[in-house]
Parts: sequence; structure tokens; C-alpha cells
Amino acid sequence: MRIAVDSMGGDRAPVVVVEGAVSALRETGDDLEVILVGREADVRSALGSAQDLSGRLRIVDAPDVVAMDEPPAATLRKKKQSSIAVGLRMQKEGAADGFISAGNTGAVAANAIFILGRIEGVSRPAIATFAPTRRGPCIILDVGANVENRPLHLLQFGVMGSCYAQVALRKREPRVGLLNVGEERSKGGDLLTEAYDLLEAAGLNFIGNVEGRDIFRGDVDVVVCDGFVGNVILKFTESVVDMFYAVMKEELTRNVRAKLGAAMLKPAFRKLRATFDYAEYGGAPLLGVDGACMICHGSSSAVAIKNAILATRRFIKYDVNSAIVERLGRHE
Amino acid sequence: MRIAVDSMGGDRAPVVVVEGAVSALRETGDDLEVILVGREADVRSALGSAQDLSGRLRIVDAPDVVAMDEPPAATLRKKKQSSIAVGLRMQKEGAADGFISAGNTGAVAANAIFILGRIEGVSRPAIATFAPTRRGPCIILDVGANVENRPLHLLQFGVMGSCYAQVALRKREPRVGLLNVGEERSKGGDLLTEAYDLLEAAGLNFIGNVEGRDIFRGDVDVVVCDGFVGNVILKFTESVVDMFYAVMKEELTRNVRAKLGAAMLKPAFRKLRATFDYAEYGGAPLLGVDGACMICHGSSSAVAIKNAILATRRFIKYDVNSAIVERLGRHE
Repeated sequence: MRIAVDSMGGDRAPVVVVEGAVSALRETGDDLEVILVGREADVRSALGSAQDLSGRLRIVDAPDVVAMDEPPAATLRKKKQSSIAVGLRMQKEGAADGFISAGNTGAVAANAIFILGRIEGVSRPAIATFAPTRRGPCIILDVGANVENRPLHLLQFGVMGSCYAQVALRKREPRVGLLNVGEERSKGGDLLTEAYDLLEAAGLNFIGNVEGRDIFRGDVDVVVCDGFVGNVILKFTESVVDMFYAVMKEELTRNVRAKLGAAMLKPAFRKLRATFDYAEYGGAPLLGVDGACMICHGSSSAVAIKNAILATRRFIKYDVNSAIVERLGRHE
Repeated sequence: MRIAVDSMGGDRAPVVVVEGAVSALRETGDDLEVILVGREADVRSALGSAQDLSGRLRIVDAPDVVAMDEPPAATLRKKKQSSIAVGLRMQKEGAADGFISAGNTGAVAANAIFILGRIEGVSRPAIATFAPTRRGPCIILDVGANVENRPLHLLQFGVMGSCYAQVALRKREPRVGLLNVGEERSKGGDLLTEAYDLLEAAGLNFIGNVEGRDIFRGDVDVVVCDGFVGNVILKFTESVVDMFYAVMKEELTRNVRAKLGAAMLKPAFRKLRATFDYAEYGGAPLLGVDGACMICHGSSSAVAIKNAILATRRFIKYDVNSAIVERLGRHE
């Protein structure tokens, strides 16, 4: 299995990305090959002495670099030799089986939809991310900032999310919920009431409307929402957790007593951080494209990159896309 | 100034509500009078020995009780003698100057709009709540679960939020931001781009689109969003904070070392809790109704009720509604 890795994407690329790729190779057997896509000189220098993996590690040059804040649509025309475009084209042409990037999310999504195309029956691809709950992670989609979703899109998000959760959460019948402002099926306006009806009739393990408390309590495996709401809450949740750490850090270094207490609690805090650090769970797939495209947070650590590579491998190995095609076919 | 308090609303009513009302009276001078509205026998028993405030404390009987999960619209027809309806009618008839409730939010909003009516120029009233930031609270509106907002509604939310922030945050020119999925003015679809144009032209201190990180960093005073998104993020933020405490509690009691560390950090944790406990900041006004109607969280403590009474007093004293009428008039 060959996974192309965007070596120029992410706040600390290429060093951290290359480091993550190397650890993924070290943790796996001969069945994994990584293709580092990026400016060859930069990638080679980041790779340093890790050349002993050369049999399973290749560098493919991509002279263009997409900035984190570049308008996605423009990159399609102007950056045809970016690490994003080159890596995705390799997959399209059969030279790679999957692609991961911690770069500009919008640009990765736009390029993936343009280059790989959508799989049969999918109207709109969606980004599915993990969120922490009291009982392990759940999946939320779409968080891709798409606006003006229709009920059919939300149905498809439910189907795609359910297929993905079977692999990513190892649940046989993932519980699918519709994010809303109340339990009653009449809540949320036309978009949501129509989506409710479609999801209910789709043969999924649909549990109805869900709210924040249901999610964090771990009562649902797949949370369906439109891409605007999903993106807003993703950023909100990240920010509130960051703020929590910031305030905590301030308080825990305020005086000697606090510093002593904090030192004693180091293991507890490490555990706390691990619960909320869902960037570490392994990237967010762009579901619905005809291929495997995993999107990582810009601030991904080497561990996050490694986990994303391993998650992409599972995504391909268990053929999530065929499951989606098969399930969507049933609803036609 | 006479404030009617829904003594039957809230998870621990009437005891906690009455306790909050009594402390509000003890903290203020003769200019405040509280009217406890509810089932007379229950209220009287909750009041216990605090009868010495009798000159400034009255009980008004309201035989009906609205349950926390009762459908709001039905309460308008079926619960005409509820503490909510009776308290609001007193205000409408001039027997009270404001009303607060920790009861069923939807029922309070529906009754307030029905009984008090909307103020001149407001198409849709909105609930404005506080959110914590690194630099003191900001205000988010609408969080009232209204769906299908139009650009004009968002403009009015911005105007109402700004007028309220002048009083509640004591800011002369509150910074108003539009919650969106990116900074660029083209983001978020037609609703948001049109709302952006209207807000920009409204003579407010409009700073453009904002996201989670801007909010928690304290870069904005008034965050405008539609009622669906606002309600979802409010519940999400509450839940993530609750989950944080729950995981922390688990970790901090895991062994003797953790318990010792936790004991040393008690003051730090108290400070942390205070930062996030925005229920304590004093309730969420329903802006745009022709009166003063403050909505509190169902789980409000006596301190939260007291703070809400004091916030309602400021709301009335500084005549937020006249400021809204005046400002909206300028845009016609």
C-alpha cells in the first residue's frame, strides 16, 4: 500500500510531517510505502539521516507550495504543481493508494474533489472529524464549512459517516444522530425535519436528534450536521479547550503552592490532555471522493501525522468507499 | 423598581429562586422590590423565616406550573395562570418593571413575545447570553434556537447586542462581529454575506467575521449569529466544559498523589470554575420585547438568580430598550 504524504502542508512542515511518515514506516511492516511529495531539496533536508528506509520511502518533487491561507479555488488554476495536486494526481493515476495533508484544508478538499472526483451517488463530499466523549471518540460530519446543504446531503453524510464509523470506531451498527436544538422531530426548520425523515427511512441505526450533552456523554457515534454548523462548533470546541488550558496554566503557575500541586498532578493532566487532543486520533477523511484523502490539523504533531497515515491505511484496507457506494445504492 | 421573579422556574425552584431573591434584596437599597410569582403555599414555605423583608417582598399567587420540557406554544393556551404568564402580565399592566425566570426557556420567550409584544422596529427578539473569553465575558446572540433567520434579523441582533453590551459590559463602542467560517466577507453563503453588508453600513463598531478563536481571545464584544447556530454552540460549549470537569474530577481522585495535588490546587480550580461559569454572570435577556425579560439557566444557583435580578435592574435603569429603538430608527 502506497500513501502519498503532502510534505509541505502544516505549520511545521516539512520537518514534522517527514518525522511522522518515518515513524509510521517504523511501526508497520513491508506492506506500507510512503511517498513524500514536496520540494525535493526541502524534503530531503528534513529527512536527514533517515535514509535507511529508502526501500519504502520515496520523494516526488512538487515545486509549487500552497500557503495555509490561500483561497482554495485559485490553487486549482495557479498551483498545478503543488504537493497537494501532485500527490492527488498520483492517486488518480494509480501511482498511490491514498493521500494525506496537514495543509490548507479548503485547498486540499477542492483539489481532491477536482482531481479524484466524487464516488457514485454522492452529491457533496464531507469532512468527518473525531470529537471526544466520555466514552471514546465520536465522529462529526460535515465540518468542512460547506453552506446551503439540502436534506439529501445530510442523509448522505449519515450514510458515509456510518460506513466510516464501522471502520474507524469498530462499531457494527454505529448510532447516527442529527445535530439539532431539541429532541423532538419537529425541531430545526425544514432542512432538519426533512433530513430527519430521510435518515429515519435509510436503514441506519438512526437515534434521532442530538444536542451537545448527548454527544459528550457518548450517546451517539456519528453526528450529522451541515458544514457551516459543523465547522463553527469544531472551531468553538477547539478554542474553548485551548482557553481552558491557558487559564489553567496561568492559575497553576501563580504561586509556589500551585506549582507544587501542579507537579503532583502531571500524570493526571497528561491524561486529561490526551482525552481532548483529538487531533491525535488520526486526521479527518474527506468522505465521498473517489479515493482516500485524509486531512490533518495544521498544527499536527509527528504523532498525529503518523496516526493519520495509519488511519488512511485502515480506510483503504477496509474499503470504506465500497461500503458507501453499496449503502447509497440501496436508497435509489 | 419592582422585579417579578418566576418562583416556580428552574431545577431547584422554588427554594433556590427565593434564596436568590432574598440575597438580591439584602444587597440593595430601598429602590428594589421583588415580587415572587408562583404557587403561594410553595413560595411561602420556601421563604421560611425571611419574612423581615416583607416591606420589599411580595408574593403573587399563580396556580399553574410550566414544566421544563413542556412545548412552549401549548403553554400560551393551556397555562394562562402560570408563574410565567402572571409575572409577564404584571409587567404589561404596569404592576412590575421587569421579569426573570429560570424556567422553560422556550415558554418564557413565547409568553414574553405574546404578552409584552415587540419593541418598535424589531422583527424578531433574540436571547443574548454571555460567553467567557480570556479578557472577560462577551455577548452572543441569538442563542434562542430560532431557525430561518434573514439578513435583516442578524442586523437587528447586532444593533440590539451593541446597545445591551454598552450597559452589560460597560463598553462605549462595543466591537460587533459576525460568526462565520472564515474572515473573508464572501464566506458563509447569502445569509451571511448580506448580513455582513447590512452590519457594515449600520454605524456600529463592526469588526467583520469572527470565529471561535477570536471570541475566546477576547477580540469581540458582541457575536452575532442565527438562533440555531447560537443555541447549538451554547450547548456544545457548556457540554465540553462539563466534560472537562468530569474527566478532571476522575483524574484528580485516582490516587493519593493526585488527591494531594488537587487539594493544593483548590484555589486555582475555584478561579478556573469562576471563569467558565457564565451562568453566574446574571442571566440572558430576551432582547427586542417591549419590557425587561431575563432568562436564567435551569440549573441556576441562588447567586445566579441574585445576579440576574441585579442585571435586570441595570437593564431597566439604563433603558436599553430606548437605546435600541433609537438606533434602529436611524436605519429606516
